[in-house]
Amino acid sequence: MRYRRGASAERELIHRLEELGFAVVRSAGSKKVDVIAGNGKLYLCIEVKSTKGKRVYLSDEDLEKLLSFSRKFGGKPYVAVKFIGREWRFFPAEKIVGRKTGKNCRIDYSDPGMSIEEVVGKQKSLIDLITRGDGDES
Amino acid sequence: MRYRRGASAERELIHRLEELGFAVVRSAGSKKVDVIAGNGKLYLCIEVKSTKGKRVYLSDEDLEKLLSFSRKFGGKPYVAVKFIGREWRFFPAEKIVGRKTGKNCRIDYSDPGMSIEEVVGKQKSLIDLITRGDGDES
Repeated sequence: MRYRRGASAERELIHRLEELGFAVVRSAGSKKVDVIAGNGKLYLCIEVKSTKGKRVYLSDEDLEKLLSFSRKFGGKPYVAVKFIGREWRFFPAEKIVGRKTGKNCRIDYSDPGMSIEEVVGKQKSLIDLITRGDGDES
Repeated sequence: MRYRRGASAERELIHRLEELGFAVVRSAGSKKVDVIAGNGKLYLCIEVKSTKGKRVYLSDEDLEKLLSFSRKFGGKPYVAVKFIGREWRFFPAEKIVGRKTGKNCRIDYSDPGMSIEEVVGKQKSLIDLITRGDGDES
């Protein structure tokens, strides 16, 4: 059986978030957001992308929809990108604004992003470790 | 064009919630919850039912899925029922437990429920008005 790559990435992400203790829904229609996840403390509004390459593009319109939806809903907006063969990277949507190329926003693998563990607070972000030097807290 | 009654009720509910300032998603698959809505303060996890009659039935399994999903997600669980030709009624899911008939839970039109305005806090519930007598607060 053949699946579209995008749908498969979405299912994988949902599974990972559920393993991390979140309740997750996939949005039907997917006009404003792909995935909503919550764990009672943190609410995530996620647009999901996947690529075999090193960058993805997001239309200005989709980014604006994600931002306005998440503001109204009360959640943190992320673009989650599956770079095939590597781990998931999460890009806070507010920070993507301004990196526009024509009518699209570009996200590169090397852009500052977060791991899924950093997003859900299971792991400090690299920036915290460098600036505070207390990576062994347990 | 013909629509299924359930899908049509769901669309109507989504539209009403959006009018009331919520960001709303319809769940794809609908295994645990039909609709998720948030307004930055209040998160609603909703199972949607509609009937031409005076009662609806919900399987124990569906109710338990709604309750466990909403606890994990961090939202208030409701069964929203469109009694065709009347207004929407919202039944807090925790209060439905115990009213079991065999393997189903029954919800009657006359059961204590809430209007959509009461759920979103735009209107005091009847119980508040009777016990506190301050219905004219503005």
